[in-house]
Formats: sequence, C-alpha cells, structure tokens
Amino acid sequence: TGDFDFTDHSHRRYNPLTDSWILVSPHRAKRPWLGQQETASKPDIPEYDPKCFLCPGNHRATGGSNPQYESTYIFQNDYAAVKEEQPVLKADNSEDTLRNRLFHVQSVRGNCFVICFSPKHNVTLPLMSVPELTEVVGAWQGLYNDLAKKAREEAKPFKYLQIFENKGTAMGCSNLHPHGQAWCLETVPSEVSQEFKSFDKYHAAHNTHLLADYVKLEMEEKSRIVFENDSFLVVVPYWAVWPFETMVVSRTKVANIAQLDDKQKKDLAIVLKTLTTKYDNLFETSFPYSMGIHQAPLNATQEELDRSWLHLHFYPPLLRSATVRKFLVGFELLGEPQRDLTAEQAAERLRKLDGETHYTKNL
Amino acid sequence: TGDFDFTDHSHRRYNPLTDSWILVSPHRAKRPWLGQQETASKPDIPEYDPKCFLCPGNHRATGGSNPQYESTYIFQNDYAAVKEEQPVLKADNSEDTLRNRLFHVQSVRGNCFVICFSPKHNVTLPLMSVPELTEVVGAWQGLYNDLAKKAREEAKPFKYLQIFENKGTAMGCSNLHPHGQAWCLETVPSEVSQEFKSFDKYHAAHNTHLLADYVKLEMEEKSRIVFENDSFLVVVPYWAVWPFETMVVSRTKVANIAQLDDKQKKDLAIVLKTLTTKYDNLFETSFPYSMGIHQAPLNATQEELDRSWLHLHFYPPLLRSATVRKFLVGFELLGEPQRDLTAEQAAERLRKLDGETHYTKNL
Ligand SMILES: O=P(O)(O)O[C@H]1O[C@H](CO)[C@@H](O)[C@H](O)[C@H]1O
Ligand SMILES: O=P(O)(O)O[C@H]1O[C@H](CO)[C@@H](O)[C@H](O)[C@H]1O
Repeated sequence: TGDFDFTDHSHRRYNPLTDSWILVSPHRAKRPWLGQQETASKPDIPEYDPKCFLCPGNHRATGGSNPQYESTYIFQNDYAAVKEEQPVLKADNSEDTLRNRLFHVQSVRGNCFVICFSPKHNVTLPLMSVPELTEVVGAWQGLYNDLAKKAREEAKPFKYLQIFENKGTAMGCSNLHPHGQAWCLETVPSEVSQEFKSFDKYHAAHNTHLLADYVKLEMEEKSRIVFENDSFLVVVPYWAVWPFETMVVSRTKVANIAQLDDKQKKDLAIVLKTLTTKYDNLFETSFPYSMGIHQAPLNATQEELDRSWLHLHFYPPLLRSATVRKFLVGFELLGEPQRDLTAEQAAERLRKLDGETHYTKNL
Repeated sequence: TGDFDFTDHSHRRYNPLTDSWILVSPHRAKRPWLGQQETASKPDIPEYDPKCFLCPGNHRATGGSNPQYESTYIFQNDYAAVKEEQPVLKADNSEDTLRNRLFHVQSVRGNCFVICFSPKHNVTLPLMSVPELTEVVGAWQGLYNDLAKKAREEAKPFKYLQIFENKGTAMGCSNLHPHGQAWCLETVPSEVSQEFKSFDKYHAAHNTHLLADYVKLEMEEKSRIVFENDSFLVVVPYWAVWPFETMVVSRTKVANIAQLDDKQKKDLAIVLKTLTTKYDNLFETSFPYSMGIHQAPLNATQEELDRSWLHLHFYPPLLRSATVRKFLVGFELLGEPQRDLTAEQAAERLRKLDGETHYTKNL
C-alpha cells in the first residue's frame, strides 16, 4: 500500500453484508463543532416514577395497567406499527401498466411488543447484573419461541422477529425506562433480506458462510476486536458507518436467539454488560444507540437456517463527547455514508476502556 | 383491493430507485410523543453576524477571510472530507485470501466546496427572490462546468459532483448562514450508482427511462403532486421514507444541472422558492431538511448521459410540528424504514399550503 496512510488518507470501504460502500475521512475529526449539542444525561432519576407508562403497577397511555412485575416484562405495544388483523391486499400485477411497472405494494400484518428490561426505572443494561441480563436474553428467547408456535399452531402472520432497542433521546427513545422492542412481521424486512442475499452469494462463491470467514479474519487481525469470550466476538466492523458502531457475532454457527444454550446465554449477557459499560465509560454518559438482533426467520426451513447466523448490530451516534454526535445527513443520505475515524481507531479506544466498572461507581 | 384501506392498514411500498422497501403504518400517527423535542427556530437573527465564518468580510475557522461578496459565493471547504492530493492506494486482490474476499477498499481523492447562497446571514431559500435563487442555480452550473473542465484539462480526480444542503440543527447543520455544499469525488457515490443500476435495469426491461415513465404516471394519478411548472414536477414519491419527503424531477430529459437553459433555470428557482415556502408554512417554522441533486457524472460518456436524469431529493425530518421529528432509528436501521402517514396524505397537505407568501410575512 506504499505511502498510503489509512489513519490520514480518505478511502472507501465495502460492506459485504449490505452490498454498499462507505467513505472514511480520518483527517476530518479535527474540524470544530458549532452545531446542535445533545443534552448530557440527567443524573438523578428515581427507581420508580409514578408518571412512567412502563413502571410496575402504573397506568399505560391507552388505558390498562402494568402488573407488579419483578424482572423482564413483555407486553403488546399500544401503538403497534403492524397488526395481526387487517385485510390482505390482493393485487393483480399481470398487466404491463405504468403502475404495475413502478408501484409495488404488499400488505403487512404482524404484532409489536415492548420488553421492559427491569422494573427499576433508573437502570440501563450496563447497570444490571449478569443474572438479570441473562433473564433479558431468556425473555427474547421466550418471545421467539412463543411467536413461532403461534404462527405454526394458530396461523398467525408471523415470519420474522426484529428485536431492537432505541436508547437515549438522540435515538428517538420516548421513555427513559429501560426497555427494548420487538416487531414481528409476516415478511422479512429489507435489511435482513439483503444480508441473506449476501450470505447466499458468498456461499455460492466460497462454499462457506460469510460470517464464518469474517470471524476467522477478525480473530487473525485482532485490530478491530473490542471484546471476546467463548461464545461471542465484539468487533468494530471493517465497514462500520456509525463512529463507534459494533457488531456482536456468535463465534460458531447459531441460527437464532432461541438456539443459545445456557453457557451461550450467559456469555451474551456478559457481552451486553461489558460492551454497554465500555460505551458509557467512553464519554462518561449514558451512551445512546440503536441496537438489534439479526437471526433466522421464525419456523425457518433448512435453507433459511443454513443461511442465518446470529449477530447483533449496535449503532451509536456519539462522535466526540457526550454532547457531540455524528449526523448522517446531506452527503450521507444523497451520496454515501461518511465517517471521521477509522474502524481500527474506534476499536482501539473501546478495547482499552474499562468494561467492568461503570464510571458512575467512581463518582 | 377490496376493503384494504391505504390510509389505515399497514403496507410496504417498493422503491425502484434504490431497490428497497419501506413500511407504511398510517394509523400510527396517533401515538403520543414524549421524546426529544427540537428547538423551534430563533426569531431575531441579524443580517450580518460578526462571529459567523460565512458572512462577507469575516475570518474563517482556519484563517483566511471571505471577500465582501454580494451574491452567491463558493469557496473550498476548510475541512474537506476528500482532498485532491493524496497517495493512490494500489491493492493487489488477485490471491484468494480471507482479506481479499471480505475487505474491499479504494482510495478516494476529490475536493469539497461551500456555497454561500446569499451574503445575508438571516435569509433562507424561501426568503430569497427568484432572481437571487436563479443565481444559486447558476452557481451550481458554474461549479459543475468548472470542475468538469479541471478534470479534463488538469487531470484533476473529479468524477461526480454531489451538490447538497443540510438545513437546520436537526440535520447537523453547524452554521445558520444560508449555505449548501458540493463534494466532488473521483468515484460515483453508492446512492447514485444504485440509482444508475436501477435505471439500466428498467431500461433493459421496458426500453425507456424509469423517470420518464414515473413522471408520466405521477401526472396521470395527480395524488402525489405538490407543485409543477413547465420544466419540473414536485412529488411526494410513492415510496417516500421521510414524512414530507419530496422529489423534484425535470419533466423532460436533462442529464445534469449545466444543461438547464434559461427558462429551466428560472423554473428551478421557482420550484426552490415555492417548495421551501410550503415547507416553512407547514409548521410555521424554518423547516429543516437535507436536499441534494442527482445528475450525470462530470465529463460523462454517451452511455452515462443516457442513463442520467436530473432530479433533486428533499429529506425533511419533521413529522407533526416544529418540534416533533421522525427518528429513523431501531426498526428503521435494523429492519426497514417505516413511516406514519401515506405519501398521498403528505402530498395533499403540502399541495394545499400557500407556496407564495411566507408565514413570517403575516406575523
Ligand atoms: O460539513 P458540516 O456541515 O460541518 O457537517 C454536516 O454535513 C456533513 C455532510 O453531510 C456530515 O458528514 C456531517 O456529519 C454533518 O454534521
Ligand atoms: O416506538 P417508539 O419508541 O415510540 O418510537 C421510536 O422507535 C420506532 C422504531 O424504531 C421509530 O419508528 C420511531 O420513529 C422512534 O421514535
């Protein structure tokens, strides 16, 4: 590579999962910031908030109330983006009309759930214990199995379960109470089906799973590894877009969350605790992000199981401090995503951070 | 379509430009909002701000100062994401290694420019006159021609000019002074090359340009048209993601901004004024957005000219008021984009709004 310096010179990296490119401009981290600042997280939050829709025993937005739950608690989203019951759209696209050429549409049924991670209003994943986090993983497994069963036995329109968490006001989260969501659709969403396409293409070319090769390569190069244990690898992917984006990949083939055995479950809980502790310690703030799980569709065929490999993506927006975030706007939306530090630089900072003691413990 | 109601039932629509799907959940606009609120725009901004890096005569962030410019003014970005001079990366990818399978990288040279729309610190596009906006279009044309010439005559690494504007703090804009940017790269960015791919595919199937058919179809259906004049159509695309997203399409084939004749130039200026006036009038605020121009590469071959069709995308985040935006986060990033009102509903609201008198004139 001659005198090309990856920490100084602009380059593009290819994302083989989404089949797209991102622009890396490492010298750009130096520019001054005059734009919007996020508010740093509030210090004194009570363990129970009588006005919170998610706290145990409280009334919810649309009437109804929460039980006095004591660990992870799942309920149906009061403002679900998809519903189990609605008419099915039957479109006849056979004729060659402009409309049939250009407008493709499908009806979508499903259901949406909210997953309260804890009854305590003032905790977040890094502040929960490994046993408590193991219960969260268990709740995800339970939901996956439960919805798969309902699809099989009650013909519910459930094909893919997208588990995710939006954390922090910067990521549009409308309630501080520690919670994630799970949207279950009768179709596989775009991002996931694009990954499946890429896995199939890679398998056809190299007769192995893309993520099998990827885990091997990251283990060899080490420079993008943030944390690892027996079951999972946490890396800043070579093609990361968000400044401190990470990917949690199971080291061996696991197709879905329900397949995790007890050891793997606990290892995932440890990953969640360690990674989010590092994130909070980076800028000494409650670190915002969107994260989610990619896995096999419900009631997957053998072919679908073969192409699925459990992994999580964390997309955190903060760039330089608790209040300065990266905006993926103008050039990013119209041209291509752009980042200001390399994946290796981000990984090094996260790797070196304490992943055990949360910064608030030292205050 | 039976009893399927597009204004109530969830559905997915396909975007043939980017080959992806978006989820529409029109009943969802009803949920309450407890999350982050944007600050509404400040009322009293001076025409000249001595601390602004972009005002005429002022010093810039990295030293140097602006001339006493009197209309549109273009200068090189002090914190360019790409540079003209840097080593070229020469990679040998011939061997079948894991790295060559999974990590693709290219060096990227180019240049970045800032375009001050006006010397006045306190105006925005809707507050400028049609002749002033015509000068902005002229400045874009000048830059396009100038960079194409430098690429031809001085072998500069310029292949694609991405013109865009980030407006408002919600879209990461770090300076109130009315300005856009233009990033010129030696490669065609992802979003644009994806569109070109789609245009080629459509042409192969139907022997016509996708946007030729699309303009025809929108003219027939009318329900998504926001505004039109002799040269341009403004629509909320059938597959819009952002709540009030619009696309400005030239009615007949124009490959790049430089090809616009005087009449078309003025018509584009009128579109800019009318559309941004409608946007500001929607929630009576200075409406944030990212917008940009998609067009032919510089010094395009005949094939590249054939597949290019000038259009602009406007991506505005506001959803319900001056302070409540749509967040494209969790499900959107991990699964697929989701919107809360239909394209037709958004178009109807924008169409009915006054596009001539800015709301501040009535205050
Ligand atoms: O160039 P600016 O205005 O400083 O920065 C803004 O626009 C750029 C181009 O879309 C983005 O990369 C930045 O994240 C954003 O904050
Ligand atoms: O469901 P919430 O938390 O009210 O809403 C948040 O997450 C959703 C799923 O990612 C997004 O569609 C919304 O834009 C966001 O504000």
